[in-house]
Amino acid sequence: MFGIDCGTEVTGYGVVETCDTGRQPRLVCIAMGAIRLNKKQPLCERLEQVHAELTSELLRWQPHAVAIEDVFYSVNAKSALKLGEVRGVALLAAASRGLPVAEYAPLSVKSSVVGYGLAKKEQVQFMVARLLELAELPQPADAADALAIAICHIHRAQTLALQGAAQ
Amino acid sequence: MFGIDCGTEVTGYGVVETCDTGRQPRLVCIAMGAIRLNKKQPLCERLEQVHAELTSELLRWQPHAVAIEDVFYSVNAKSALKLGEVRGVALLAAASRGLPVAEYAPLSVKSSVVGYGLAKKEQVQFMVARLLELAELPQPADAADALAIAICHIHRAQTLALQGAAQ
Repeated sequence: MFGIDCGTEVTGYGVVETCDTGRQPRLVCIAMGAIRLNKKQPLCERLEQVHAELTSELLRWQPHAVAIEDVFYSVNAKSALKLGEVRGVALLAAASRGLPVAEYAPLSVKSSVVGYGLAKKEQVQFMVARLLELAELPQPADAADALAIAICHIHRAQTLALQGAAQ
Repeated sequence: MFGIDCGTEVTGYGVVETCDTGRQPRLVCIAMGAIRLNKKQPLCERLEQVHAELTSELLRWQPHAVAIEDVFYSVNAKSALKLGEVRGVALLAAASRGLPVAEYAPLSVKSSVVGYGLAKKEQVQFMVARLLELAELPQPADAADALAIAICHIHRAQTLALQGAAQ
């Protein structure tokens, strides 16, 4: 599962897989990183960079699906348009590889990882580190958010599988 | 000059070139069209369609540059994000072909074509037809808008050339 946290300055990504050890399935962090954009570069070049780096990471880690944060409506129209441009090329990178894309609202992601929809960034980082059994807090926060989105998707899939089994 | 008018339902495009006949340079419409998106299709597929069709048209017409409408701030954040996604993949299509991209505000485009920044869609269509010596009004309006953006860029380049020659 490949999580993406889009941003106009930094776009985080993280790869999380489940590892069945016979007992309870464990979550394992495979990779994480951040694509940092230089605001002085032309917009076209920045979008090309996001698309190229995400395409390269998707090729490298060969995930089965992509999870991305859903629209955050409270930003203003100008910021939303700029964020949309980055989101567009990120979605295109996933679509070009034929990967299914799941979208989750920030509230769902935080609820799934911290248990509280209005959790702060530091709480998300702390819980991501704990769930993935990392020795240190994941850095930068954008990569931690991307890991959280991937974890949210895995939790959702596990819940749906349990519900299916119970029926 | 390849003009693009991005939209979440229809994205128009138009190709305009100048033709030097010895007297005053004429504007010639080389092509126009519209990419229509099916709202029932997943977002990823729609973005892939816009990117693929624009890439194909850019390959076909081999323009030297691309002109695109600049941000329209008065839309709400949700619409702006959706428009941004389409804009992102359109800009990526131009960037991937190494084409320079010029951005123009709707006010500049209308001023350049109609002479009035708050002109209506019909007025833009009428003036585009007149400037390009078309027998009929360009259809759909999104293609006419794309042609208007291309004309705006050519007018701007001509003005800059004249100013340079006068100095």
